[in-house]
Amino acid sequence: MAEAKGVLSVVGIGPGAADHVPPAASRAILEADLIVGYTTYIKLVSELIRGKEIVRTGMTEEIGRARAAVTRARDGGRVALISSGDAGVYGMAGLVFQVLREMGWKRGDSPELHIIPGVTALSSCASLVGAPLVHDFCAISLSDLLTPWPIIARRIEAAAAADFVIGLYNPASGRRTRQIVEAQAIIKKYRDGKTPVALVKSAYRKLQHTVLTDLDNFLDYEIGMLTTVLVGSSNSYVFEGYMVTPRGYTNKYTADGEVRPGQRPGFSLVLEPAGPAQER
Amino acid sequence: MAEAKGVLSVVGIGPGAADHVPPAASRAILEADLIVGYTTYIKLVSELIRGKEIVRTGMTEEIGRARAAVTRARDGGRVALISSGDAGVYGMAGLVFQVLREMGWKRGDSPELHIIPGVTALSSCASLVGAPLVHDFCAISLSDLLTPWPIIARRIEAAAAADFVIGLYNPASGRRTRQIVEAQAIIKKYRDGKTPVALVKSAYRKLQHTVLTDLDNFLDYEIGMLTTVLVGSSNSYVFEGYMVTPRGYTNKYTADGEVRPGQRPGFSLVLEPAGPAQER
Repeated sequence: MAEAKGVLSVVGIGPGAADHVPPAASRAILEADLIVGYTTYIKLVSELIRGKEIVRTGMTEEIGRARAAVTRARDGGRVALISSGDAGVYGMAGLVFQVLREMGWKRGDSPELHIIPGVTALSSCASLVGAPLVHDFCAISLSDLLTPWPIIARRIEAAAAADFVIGLYNPASGRRTRQIVEAQAIIKKYRDGKTPVALVKSAYRKLQHTVLTDLDNFLDYEIGMLTTVLVGSSNSYVFEGYMVTPRGYTNKYTADGEVRPGQRPGFSLVLEPAGPAQER
Repeated sequence: MAEAKGVLSVVGIGPGAADHVPPAASRAILEADLIVGYTTYIKLVSELIRGKEIVRTGMTEEIGRARAAVTRARDGGRVALISSGDAGVYGMAGLVFQVLREMGWKRGDSPELHIIPGVTALSSCASLVGAPLVHDFCAISLSDLLTPWPIIARRIEAAAAADFVIGLYNPASGRRTRQIVEAQAIIKKYRDGKTPVALVKSAYRKLQHTVLTDLDNFLDYEIGMLTTVLVGSSNSYVFEGYMVTPRGYTNKYTADGEVRPGQRPGFSLVLEPAGPAQER
């Protein structure tokens, strides 16, 4: 008879506070025999993992963590592999598939795989500074440890030119400080220096710190490994210390919510026949 | 003496199942006297709102919902305004600030404002098809009800050219079917027809349906209001029916996790001196 199948749950714990871990994620952690994760994240969910076996390793040993988790689950364990934020957004889910592929795993083989969605760093950071992500946005990691800088720079340029709100992950670390300076220079080619920029550090953790500033000035503030940088679109504005991006452009409705002449609710925005769309 | 301050919580309920509503969001709903939301979303959280007063309105009455919620909270109520996904990502948080601004609200005035982060549609859809969002991505809404199409088209073009994974929200509706066809044509200028594309409908709800296909063929499948479209980057691949985007480019490590000659863990990727970065 075949051995019992193991279960591997890839779990995002959100910003860190138990208050932002969805029930499906807590349950996957509670039901696991083995918890694998980076030391900092393990500490954040300590109340969920009391008495369990834990494999914790340092930040640069991600592939080792993925291998440990997959192997133990393949051999019949119930394993929860923990990422911060959402495990599928710059998280461990990608490495799990890399390891499964190396191993020659097929659907139906052990382990059974569960990817549990979580609250991204973008969402938790945005919620602390207002509503910066209510319209089209990009997430770009400034870490060039695994991605060549020219590819990253090209993405920043494209995002800036096409007026996306831009969320920058991994903006800087102890020895990696040049990228955020170059990112500012690229974005400034396309956006006004007064464009709102929010810096959020350690969202919903003890050392949480937020700064609302602008494109010209944000480099004057501390930016590190735990900071997420949110750069507004041309349409973003500051209101009572909040950063807000309106949903769409206000060509159809007046501020009172009345439909402008020539427009119909529920139908495509009718553009001025004379020229290109105005961004108001 | 001043009246008691009201509280307005802007709450994302994630994909819909209670299993993906973080505790902070459930609590805000449970503690509210008045729940305001689109009928479909109200139904999804019915077990949390039994016995409470409810204001539900149709999809096109979003500004009316935001006004009702803000006004009642200003007048002293405890109100939860509900969005699906994350309230800050194409959700109600933006309209709340618009209404507060119209009203002349200041920080410290009633209502007290809480924006509670949730699980985005991107995260929940991605978790069902593998790990498509593990590297840089964009979210673009194809709805041109409030945004001029030329702006949307420019964003699709920029995202495609700069090799972002692309998440398309609101890809089509009953009368809006042209945009997704144009989006495909734009993206095909830059990406191979075999690029993986996932279609996810009603993630974690009763009628959940996922399709894994490719850029050439995805228009052959049903795409509607409740579908999220995930288009891979040049680096995304299909493995055992999962869509996976590796985190970064594999220039530093071999598939076995060994460091390639000339590279150092924790340091910037060293590029070939001869030319631009290769995307492998």
